[in-house]
Amino acid sequence: MKPDPGFLQHLGITLPIIQAPMAGACGAQMVIAVCRAGGLGSLPCAMLSKEQVFREVKQIRSHTDRPFNLNFFCHGEPDTRHASLEPWKQTLAPYYRERGLRMPDDGDRAVRQTFNDEMCRVVEKVRPAVVSFHFGLPGKKLLERVRSAGSLILSSATTTREARWLESRGVDAVIAQGAEAGGHRGLFLDNSIATQSGTMTLVPQIADAIGVPVIAAGGIGDGRTMAAAFALGACCTQIGTAYLYCPESTISRLHREALLASSDESTALTNVYTGRPARGIVNRLLSELGPISDAAPPFPLAAADLAPLRAASEADGNTDFTPLWSGQGAGLGKPFAGVPAAELTVKLASQARAVLEDMKPQGRIVRNWFRSG
Amino acid sequence: MKPDPGFLQHLGITLPIIQAPMAGACGAQMVIAVCRAGGLGSLPCAMLSKEQVFREVKQIRSHTDRPFNLNFFCHGEPDTRHASLEPWKQTLAPYYRERGLRMPDDGDRAVRQTFNDEMCRVVEKVRPAVVSFHFGLPGKKLLERVRSAGSLILSSATTTREARWLESRGVDAVIAQGAEAGGHRGLFLDNSIATQSGTMTLVPQIADAIGVPVIAAGGIGDGRTMAAAFALGACCTQIGTAYLYCPESTISRLHREALLASSDESTALTNVYTGRPARGIVNRLLSELGPISDAAPPFPLAAADLAPLRAASEADGNTDFTPLWSGQGAGLGKPFAGVPAAELTVKLASQARAVLEDMKPQGRIVRNWFRSG
Repeated sequence: MKPDPGFLQHLGITLPIIQAPMAGACGAQMVIAVCRAGGLGSLPCAMLSKEQVFREVKQIRSHTDRPFNLNFFCHGEPDTRHASLEPWKQTLAPYYRERGLRMPDDGDRAVRQTFNDEMCRVVEKVRPAVVSFHFGLPGKKLLERVRSAGSLILSSATTTREARWLESRGVDAVIAQGAEAGGHRGLFLDNSIATQSGTMTLVPQIADAIGVPVIAAGGIGDGRTMAAAFALGACCTQIGTAYLYCPESTISRLHREALLASSDESTALTNVYTGRPARGIVNRLLSELGPISDAAPPFPLAAADLAPLRAASEADGNTDFTPLWSGQGAGLGKPFAGVPAAELTVKLASQARAVLEDMKPQGRIVRNWFRSG
Repeated sequence: MKPDPGFLQHLGITLPIIQAPMAGACGAQMVIAVCRAGGLGSLPCAMLSKEQVFREVKQIRSHTDRPFNLNFFCHGEPDTRHASLEPWKQTLAPYYRERGLRMPDDGDRAVRQTFNDEMCRVVEKVRPAVVSFHFGLPGKKLLERVRSAGSLILSSATTTREARWLESRGVDAVIAQGAEAGGHRGLFLDNSIATQSGTMTLVPQIADAIGVPVIAAGGIGDGRTMAAAFALGACCTQIGTAYLYCPESTISRLHREALLASSDESTALTNVYTGRPARGIVNRLLSELGPISDAAPPFPLAAADLAPLRAASEADGNTDFTPLWSGQGAGLGKPFAGVPAAELTVKLASQARAVLEDMKPQGRIVRNWFRSG
């Protein structure tokens, strides 16, 4: 365990919270609110064009001069020549028949972009304080350009092997993403989800394995889970699902309602929405085809064939075909539902402090044990 | 969160550690060592005859007058008339052919016993301070007899629903068993393993859901993970895998070697060894037939047909057919390998105290954040 006491100062933040970049679920408004409160706001760029990134960044900078994070996927481009979409189309055909819809011949399959030269130019122009990657790292040259732009570089690891791999390529900190996390698993050296670790065991084992700071992610959504992350050896937390309840979140009303109605048993890891394992609330498509389907084509190709089904269902107020991304800690965020993101950031940090106060040898939680031992 | 400051006193222990009952992996020696150190030793009784339980208890009591825990399974008896073993036998047939072995016609299928009148008489005679159950609780009458014997009653929950169910039946504390835990999942209201929560999210959600004390289990194996469990709202921890490395553990040399060679990516939940989901190190049978196989008959019937394969393989120094139970935190226990159970218990507790000291507002871990915030 090598916590870096200056890490928050290094990131330029005063509260140990990184708002998780959640593609399709947040934009400039969320980033501004979190940054102003003292946390690190993250703009998810994987589903944005370069023009959209510039626009969002302009908006952020017109409201705050605090540091922020631009987040990119780096999954590489799937080989569309060889990836057969036929099994997937056949699997989905009954749903199209059921709703009397026509399957698209050529949906926009590139809706989730991999970090490339074009996006790297955006980074070089914007020069964000932090750039974080998901699904590994871009190639060496692109990575050096990001570093030269002056950005600190973060990426997610789901195993100690991935953490070492990231450290050896020079990341400034590793986000240890436990299996509880909502949305896409960052896994990139393997695709075995059966062996993915929970946050409780992943964070300390990664902290032991590497020398750079560790940020804990996965299941963190209140002061207790934040304090636990620090005990495990993390020096900062990354929080996603709790922010989905904020007014700044851009998720649909249906998604919000599903979160509020969910329990600790509601989510599973599934590949049926994009082709890569991601945690979401169990709904019709997930339970009927998955949670894991061999028919799903490589990421991100699965999504395009679902778009018309999803749109038609949502128009009926139905989420049968909607990816309802959520972590296992959705229940922890419910008491905060509707609280604006700036207030949530401050509240989470003060809750965590209160828990830490309580854990002092004189505190309530361990008083008895310290007295007796 | 309602931690009970008197809970350890109630259990009669001075350190917040319950040694997990691990059927087939520990006996009186382990219980004696843990109890003498100030933790709660647990004797797993599911694979013992009543005579064996009496003998072990006699041995425990001749070495310590501290309180201990007797642990029982309460899975109910599988209906062997209707449970078809044919698909399982067919699935295993190639392995028997490969090794030139004959499949047993009628293996001893009752090797894991459910708590019944006979075992209840043992409890009434022994009157242990604590009785813990796995897979729910026995019927009302049996449970009342256990209570009348003066034992505190614990059971495991893997969901908030199970925790409420247990509380409503009067347990004195609930063991929140996160998905990281090794060995059998305690789940009993459902059998969906895809939706099982990690310890990080399960413990606080159960602590919010019920009024009785919560014991955290799953992935706890050093001072950091213990401290994290307290932050999450647990007032005690249950630790299994770390004790497998002790000289008092009765696992085979092969199992011990597999634990030492394992990493954070080594385990998965599987039903191929007993018919119920349990976490173990991925080996040949687990990866070729599982992790989850529809052919496996109801618990505990799967085990008997594997016994000859396992015995023959182990004789060759091979663990292809051996259940290598392990939690995801096996790596946390490695630095303690070979340390006797009493010393381990004290070490874990002092490590946890050191972490808590470090988390004080003036401590190293959060110094920077408290200074800046």
